[in-house]
Amino acid sequence: MEHYKITLSSDDVPTQWYNINADLPVELPMPKNSEGKDQIASLQKAFTKAGLEQEFSQERYIKIPSEVRELYMKMGRPSPLFRATNLEEYLNTPAKIYYKREDTSPTGSHKLNSAIPQAYFAKKEGVERLTTETGAGQWGTALSLACNLLDLDCTVYMVRVSFDQKPDRKNIMNIYNGDVYASPSENTEVGRQILAENPDHPGSLGVAISEAMEEALAYDEVKYTLGSVLNQVMLHQTVIGQELKTQLEIAEEEPDVMIACAGGGSNFAGSLFPFIKDKIDGNSDTQFIAVEPSACPTLTQGSYEYDFGDVNGFTPMLKMFTLGHDFVAPSVHAGGLRYHGMSPQVSLLTKEGYIEPRSAHQREVFEAGITFARNEGVLPAPETTHAIKVAIDEAIKCKETGEEKTIVLNFSGHGMLDLKGYASYFEGNMLDAK
Amino acid sequence: MEHYKITLSSDDVPTQWYNINADLPVELPMPKNSEGKDQIASLQKAFTKAGLEQEFSQERYIKIPSEVRELYMKMGRPSPLFRATNLEEYLNTPAKIYYKREDTSPTGSHKLNSAIPQAYFAKKEGVERLTTETGAGQWGTALSLACNLLDLDCTVYMVRVSFDQKPDRKNIMNIYNGDVYASPSENTEVGRQILAENPDHPGSLGVAISEAMEEALAYDEVKYTLGSVLNQVMLHQTVIGQELKTQLEIAEEEPDVMIACAGGGSNFAGSLFPFIKDKIDGNSDTQFIAVEPSACPTLTQGSYEYDFGDVNGFTPMLKMFTLGHDFVAPSVHAGGLRYHGMSPQVSLLTKEGYIEPRSAHQREVFEAGITFARNEGVLPAPETTHAIKVAIDEAIKCKETGEEKTIVLNFSGHGMLDLKGYASYFEGNMLDAK
Repeated sequence: MEHYKITLSSDDVPTQWYNINADLPVELPMPKNSEGKDQIASLQKAFTKAGLEQEFSQERYIKIPSEVRELYMKMGRPSPLFRATNLEEYLNTPAKIYYKREDTSPTGSHKLNSAIPQAYFAKKEGVERLTTETGAGQWGTALSLACNLLDLDCTVYMVRVSFDQKPDRKNIMNIYNGDVYASPSENTEVGRQILAENPDHPGSLGVAISEAMEEALAYDEVKYTLGSVLNQVMLHQTVIGQELKTQLEIAEEEPDVMIACAGGGSNFAGSLFPFIKDKIDGNSDTQFIAVEPSACPTLTQGSYEYDFGDVNGFTPMLKMFTLGHDFVAPSVHAGGLRYHGMSPQVSLLTKEGYIEPRSAHQREVFEAGITFARNEGVLPAPETTHAIKVAIDEAIKCKETGEEKTIVLNFSGHGMLDLKGYASYFEGNMLDAK
Repeated sequence: MEHYKITLSSDDVPTQWYNINADLPVELPMPKNSEGKDQIASLQKAFTKAGLEQEFSQERYIKIPSEVRELYMKMGRPSPLFRATNLEEYLNTPAKIYYKREDTSPTGSHKLNSAIPQAYFAKKEGVERLTTETGAGQWGTALSLACNLLDLDCTVYMVRVSFDQKPDRKNIMNIYNGDVYASPSENTEVGRQILAENPDHPGSLGVAISEAMEEALAYDEVKYTLGSVLNQVMLHQTVIGQELKTQLEIAEEEPDVMIACAGGGSNFAGSLFPFIKDKIDGNSDTQFIAVEPSACPTLTQGSYEYDFGDVNGFTPMLKMFTLGHDFVAPSVHAGGLRYHGMSPQVSLLTKEGYIEPRSAHQREVFEAGITFARNEGVLPAPETTHAIKVAIDEAIKCKETGEEKTIVLNFSGHGMLDLKGYASYFEGNMLDAK
């Protein structure tokens, strides 16, 4: 019988995270301070001890604490793997297309996989409150729920323009007990200074990071969290890829092409690092494709160099692909992919040729998302449509060559809170940023 | 090990629908025409042959066509059963609470279970287009997707006030290729007449039904569909309850209390009729609770009598609990529960004492929904919060009595498109309709 869906039982939730630092083909350049500043010291103060340890760990596997593993189960992990048979038929392709359903998380994306352990380690270290910034809102949503599950307070600084434009995102964070503030806010020194100069300041991710970090630096019982870019986040997310390995074994499939979108890199790394390990080890010739918006072409057009992780230079300098820390991406709907930099690990593996980067235009990814929804039912988030677009491209190539490739993509999140983006596609007024 | 989640494989999708007509404890009163009219003839013209056959069938089990069963699988059935261990712990109850996740359907509710077979039978009979009305929008969304999957056109008449207030619902129907019109529209005689008198008419479910039926009566290649109340819908939905039986067997649980919300009755019937059969047969003493809004108390305050299914008297008269076909429910957020009548089968079984009806106020069901989301992660639709409220009440009773009851509820849909309702709860301006 056909495999339409491959589910695993709670027992199959991985027991350890995979840390690619142990297997990188060349040495990873370390973060460094910019001249005359000590951002590394700030970072050490702002993050939990466990987080910092994981950040620089060289251990290949790190045990998932049993309480975290249990919360993964309670929140529905493992996530199912689906085969897109309707889409295959529609494309009339000999290729097989599989998609791993991270949208089935209660918060609708993969973000909870790192929010839970970050909240857990903080709780264990006696932290009372976590702060973070959020742009599109997926990370702020996941962290709000994780903090509530672990009995921590959660403060989310949401870029004011998003706060005003996306009331639903604020609403869902409130439901999960998160305290959401439009940034710049009156809560912090940074925020008050900016508002004093311009009470109508629209905010930016840089400002929101500054506000969240200011609180973590000011109070011992407050720590700062980040939903992507860092190695700890990449490794937490490898529960996706490890489950996916088990599921592809059950389906008796060897993937030829594996695809994920990439903003800061966490859903890409989480779903594909466990497979890239095999390629580094010489045991696989799978093709790995990272897809980004043409509007924010970090991997395809950026430089591989030391740059700040944030706009204001609060973070240490990281060696990564970057468009420059002052790059302002056009306001595409895929808010989660509008980041100037990229995970240092994903960057290094791209530099070394293990990952092939591609970019796609906004209108064509929405078109792919609609094709997917009409055939498979599930509505993808704007970020996820990037992976779908390339999966469809690859499947069409197979139709031309007759190759029966197995294509696997990570379906990072659903688009239920992104319907305005789809509406603008239909209304014909969508920016097709190049 | 604990059962957090019980998944079934695609093979476990039921092979037949269960038809409670075969097992009703007393005879079901037949639909009848009102004086001087022949609504039964209209209905016969408006519906598919297969639909009408199922409507009056006395067969206990009706085979699910293999194409329909395959589409159920492709759209992700069977749905998982979860245990609400976090909620149990929060309530400090000895009770066990399980919830069947119909929100995992791509359209976010149970409605696709009937939309797929209705579209399938129509296609088989050479129909080219289906029409329907939608209020809250769940049924229109499911029918749009089902029609697209089966290569049928779909026209949805959406009450104008909802059309204007809920652009996201319209957007998602467009994504699924549904043609959505604000009703009253210029498409139909009825619509044009109303607009001629009042160009700003806000519309009503009654008007929308009239428009959808007018088209089905005017064209042979067009048929009309309905997402609840009818027996065919009840029986299509029994895939839920049959899966749930298998899952509870795996969990080794005998349910003491089973709960579902009830508007027209389809999610209640679908999840619980297969269990109520056992009670009718004398093999079960499970308690079955149907929960409705205090604002639309059909089962708790209505009369059991013959009444029209719609406001305008286009449908035959059905013997059911009703608040009167001209009853206008206050505008509570649970749009799917604002129906004056109730499935004749659910009505009869309530009359005969097999089903216990309860009502709940709007603010208290939203509060229950928020408690659920904060503990279990998943955000319930306003309709679903009614079942959750009563499950929590029952679990609290168990805390008082020390009883270790097994409580099972049908989680009929998610609330991702209902965040404005939650916002009004937090803003303190929610109507607590009594």
